[in-house]
Amino acid sequence: MLEQASGDEAATTIGLSEEDLRRIVREEIRAASAKDPGSQRCAIIASKGTLDWAYPPLIVATAAAASGMETSIFFTFYGLKVITKGFTKDVKVGTTGNPAMPMPVPMADVFAGMPGMKAMATSMMKTKFSKKGVATIDELLELARDLGIHLIACRMTMDVFEYEESDFIEGVEFAGAAAFVSEARKAHITLFV
Amino acid sequence: MLEQASGDEAATTIGLSEEDLRRIVREEIRAASAKDPGSQRCAIIASKGTLDWAYPPLIVATAAAASGMETSIFFTFYGLKVITKGFTKDVKVGTTGNPAMPMPVPMADVFAGMPGMKAMATSMMKTKFSKKGVATIDELLELARDLGIHLIACRMTMDVFEYEESDFIEGVEFAGAAAFVSEARKAHITLFV
Amino acid sequence: MLEQASGDEAATTIGLSEEDLRRIVREEIRAASAKDPGSQRCAIIASKGTLDWAYPPLIVATAAAASGMETSIFFTFYGLKVITKGFTKDVKVGTTGNPAMPMPVPMADVFAGMPGMKAMATSMMKTKFSKKGVATIDELLELARDLGIHLIACRMTMDVFEYEESDFIEGVEFAGAAAFVSEARKAHITLFV
Repeated sequence: MLEQASGDEAATTIGLSEEDLRRIVREEIRAASAKDPGSQRCAIIASKGTLDWAYPPLIVATAAAASGMETSIFFTFYGLKVITKGFTKDVKVGTTGNPAMPMPVPMADVFAGMPGMKAMATSMMKTKFSKKGVATIDELLELARDLGIHLIACRMTMDVFEYEESDFIEGVEFAGAAAFVSEARKAHITLFV
Repeated sequence: MLEQASGDEAATTIGLSEEDLRRIVREEIRAASAKDPGSQRCAIIASKGTLDWAYPPLIVATAAAASGMETSIFFTFYGLKVITKGFTKDVKVGTTGNPAMPMPVPMADVFAGMPGMKAMATSMMKTKFSKKGVATIDELLELARDLGIHLIACRMTMDVFEYEESDFIEGVEFAGAAAFVSEARKAHITLFV
Repeated sequence: MLEQASGDEAATTIGLSEEDLRRIVREEIRAASAKDPGSQRCAIIASKGTLDWAYPPLIVATAAAASGMETSIFFTFYGLKVITKGFTKDVKVGTTGNPAMPMPVPMADVFAGMPGMKAMATSMMKTKFSKKGVATIDELLELARDLGIHLIACRMTMDVFEYEESDFIEGVEFAGAAAFVSEARKAHITLFV
């Protein structure tokens, strides 16, 4: 220790103009911003509980985590359902409100609201996705956990709709809106789905 | 003052290697990024006008502002209605398109579109939220103003749907999309609800 | 060149206290963060295919690009339809689920689901927007391309719903979720519409 201190004292003064100094500083700033911590974090809110809208948060989150980003998904409101046990058995596609959903058979929107139509659309979408080799929600949730993505259930929604911790799949964490804010304020990618 | 100036002139050249210099620079960058201005700002677009979707922007915004962040909510499209006078009296929950909304009684979705069903769902949700001690929209709007959150009405939507400034609750500001961009580009948390 | 090199060698050691040094470093950091690269980038996901929800991503994106930001819109899920040829001829406003949509005539929501009602709402919205001098989707897409905004079609959605590259308007690029993540992690404004 003493020797190191004496070594420091012996450091020779380098001839350094203010211009040189500013150049060095700019180099360091460039290097630091290349590893900008904001570009390493992704925080997503998943608020919807239909099969179609369960996909986007999981697809973006797994792509982010696969790129090495520290990623969290906060499941809240209707989205909470996505991480309950048995979601994929019960879930339906929301047909109404999606006139852009391409249907094999044209279908007036009023029929889209009839009992049975959702089941049909859901089964059609499941078939389309599996034919195309797209992962199921179950597979994406498993991938998410393998990639270390934090799956967080919103405590307030749990209270309002009377969910228990035991209603959720394994690995789910529990937190409030403040936890989302604390994570998202450090992240460049923040999305509300 | 004179004495200080003469003190500066007298500053002795410190023995400083380039390595020392880079260490000091990195310290300063670390300190600066700890108070990264992006982590201090939150800009949210609230585009939906139903009771359920009025909650998320207000909940995230108040959590952000309570954490000391400079926070704005831009009310646009259907969301403009949330900051009009009398919103909570007139508002309805959107039942269709939310098959995940947990209902006490199972209900085929076609019934969810019938007149009267929305009123029932809205009243059920109001009861659920108030039983659980969740703030009402009116209370959240008041909290938002107390926390200094900017509540901004989108001028373009006002023009298209013929709203007047006098249609809005107290404290609302008026601006266009450029104002959102100007705020959001400085913010880490940016959400479209 | 030789003279400059010899000039550099001749740079005299400036009297620089550590305090002076830290002041200079802080100045440089302030200057660098004023041109924070995050504040120069905007990445938006457009996931909805109705006329009303086609507007927000295009309005925010054109406002961002007009402010000099490098801007991308990733069209995915139902949003893919917005950049297909002939979108504005076929598109409908989603009436259900928008109880806040101000209608000239009050209308029970069940009627909003009847065939013909969407066409009426769409035509009403087109009229309202054109009366108010708001650009059409076609005009906004053209403006977007003029401003150099990247319009990107999601390859996975194209595969699932069997779109061909030739189904899209001119200038569209094709990429996957990883491309969105790679762009968005560098951007302060990231939105999911």
